[in-house]
Amino acid sequence: MKKNVAVIGVGAVGVEIIKILKERKFPINNLRVFARSRRSIEIEGEDYEVEAIEDSDFSNIDIALFAGTEGEKGASVLYADKFVKKGAVVIDNGSDFRLKKNVPLIVPEINKGEVIRHKGIIANPNCTTIQMVVALADIYRTFGLKEIILSSYQATSGAGRKASLGLWEETREVVENNKDKDFNCLAKKLSGPNRVFGPQIAFNVIPRIGSPAEDGYTGEEWKVVRETHKIFNDRRIKISATCARVPVFTSHCESIHFTTKENASLSRIAGVLNNSAGVEYSGESLCFPLDAEGKDPVYVCRLRPNLYRKKSFWMWCVADNLRKGAALNAVQIAELLL
Amino acid sequence: MKKNVAVIGVGAVGVEIIKILKERKFPINNLRVFARSRRSIEIEGEDYEVEAIEDSDFSNIDIALFAGTEGEKGASVLYADKFVKKGAVVIDNGSDFRLKKNVPLIVPEINKGEVIRHKGIIANPNCTTIQMVVALADIYRTFGLKEIILSSYQATSGAGRKASLGLWEETREVVENNKDKDFNCLAKKLSGPNRVFGPQIAFNVIPRIGSPAEDGYTGEEWKVVRETHKIFNDRRIKISATCARVPVFTSHCESIHFTTKENASLSRIAGVLNNSAGVEYSGESLCFPLDAEGKDPVYVCRLRPNLYRKKSFWMWCVADNLRKGAALNAVQIAELLL
Repeated sequence: MKKNVAVIGVGAVGVEIIKILKERKFPINNLRVFARSRRSIEIEGEDYEVEAIEDSDFSNIDIALFAGTEGEKGASVLYADKFVKKGAVVIDNGSDFRLKKNVPLIVPEINKGEVIRHKGIIANPNCTTIQMVVALADIYRTFGLKEIILSSYQATSGAGRKASLGLWEETREVVENNKDKDFNCLAKKLSGPNRVFGPQIAFNVIPRIGSPAEDGYTGEEWKVVRETHKIFNDRRIKISATCARVPVFTSHCESIHFTTKENASLSRIAGVLNNSAGVEYSGESLCFPLDAEGKDPVYVCRLRPNLYRKKSFWMWCVADNLRKGAALNAVQIAELLL
Repeated sequence: MKKNVAVIGVGAVGVEIIKILKERKFPINNLRVFARSRRSIEIEGEDYEVEAIEDSDFSNIDIALFAGTEGEKGASVLYADKFVKKGAVVIDNGSDFRLKKNVPLIVPEINKGEVIRHKGIIANPNCTTIQMVVALADIYRTFGLKEIILSSYQATSGAGRKASLGLWEETREVVENNKDKDFNCLAKKLSGPNRVFGPQIAFNVIPRIGSPAEDGYTGEEWKVVRETHKIFNDRRIKISATCARVPVFTSHCESIHFTTKENASLSRIAGVLNNSAGVEYSGESLCFPLDAEGKDPVYVCRLRPNLYRKKSFWMWCVADNLRKGAALNAVQIAELLL
């Protein structure tokens, strides 16, 4: 039962989707790649002809994976319906459809059963949400979750390829500017405007991701709240987040403080994490973004109780934001359609 | 009433103390600088003769500022008593005396009155603690504080000069290794052992600061709890922290979730922050570590309520860990002795 597959977008996530389809031997009859403009690209030694989406015919596509765009309306707003009308099922990594009623928002480890309710479009959650809910899923199932307080340490690639290139160029510029300087006289702050994030990201932390939204929270912080509620189908979980950007290329870190409903001991939670699908709990060992890059699991470490509050615990969670946080989860959803 | 002053240690904090003494025109009769070995150093164009501490005579010193050492027992363990016996008052930036009974732990904005209770030694709190308590002090005074949940984003200089040099060398090595490479093929992870933090810090996040201590927390995380309790003289505040290192040279960031005892509105808290000593609340504007470097205030932004929990709020707090987090606070304590 080989499928005709389309990938829309060839930025950081689009490229990752193409790699993962191949890596997981997704049964593809014909792969078409779309972007704004026609061109040739090479991914891991293989050439792909990219079609200009505007002029194309979308017939005979079974599954269309939209890579999504951060910060602006994605191609899916313009084209998803056109693919659906021609018979494709759309899996959208962008944020435009995630909270719509007839659009299932899927993390396969948690709610794969929802897939059958789609009306042509299935949404992939935001990277920050995905790794958090995967890490907490079995804890939620076993003990319930009353509250989540999240502080994130997010990689530049979450804002797309250009953002990571920006970190790289800023870093090189700082190194270049200081080539002949003594370490004590480093000039770490670059001058000039038009940095990729506004403020410089190299050797800095930016405590805002996405546009300001309601009540002082950003779009990214609301995504964590609303998407988690939808995925767990439980709006009673009290979720509050602060999302920050750090000078890391790939893999987000999350400092998660969570409170269970039922009594839960540290050893029982550790036991649950050891058996959680998609989770690699490393116990006393630490997990790092540099090590998570290119890997599938959501890594968890530093599990410990809040000694001052019953049923409250900390965990540190790391995952490749382009893989489990985006492309891998999208391909896993596609696998559910087989 | 000019004083004879000694500075012990010429690492990141020691150098900063010398700069700040000068900058704030501390009334100095005679300044002596001590370190493990004899040498000459230059700070901002001025030469200082460093005496080897082991062979020295500590007579005629009024105030001795120990710069402190991260990660190992500080010089103060060996020498503080010797200075005190010769008549000096010791201000120690290290962690060895902070929790001792007869040693006041001072943040001048909060508990300067405690200074008079010293028996020769006064302690300077840990950088992570100082900026948090300065940001929260007037909120505590006005509304009380029931709980603090902290996630930190700490700069390398908190682990000393060598640690920052380590970040710099790692960064240069990554840039050098990738000079002729396409951005898609960046090799960001360095090979080889003996990185300054163990794991690579360049383009990475390390979710542990200090040695593992009780109940899964690190020494750094316990400092935040116990020092805050001592400074506010209130052990009922429920404090729990996760401390992480980010690839930033100077200035720590803190994502602080706090719960007041009394009812507090957002506008009343903003009003309190606008009038808090040592605090610069920037309202809608963000604050960044790169901008806080070399500055005195504790910067606060992103104040907002946790919409799911009464009396609970977030703030983002940034301060130069070498200045208010260490050297400036120590010099402010010395000023109290004048």
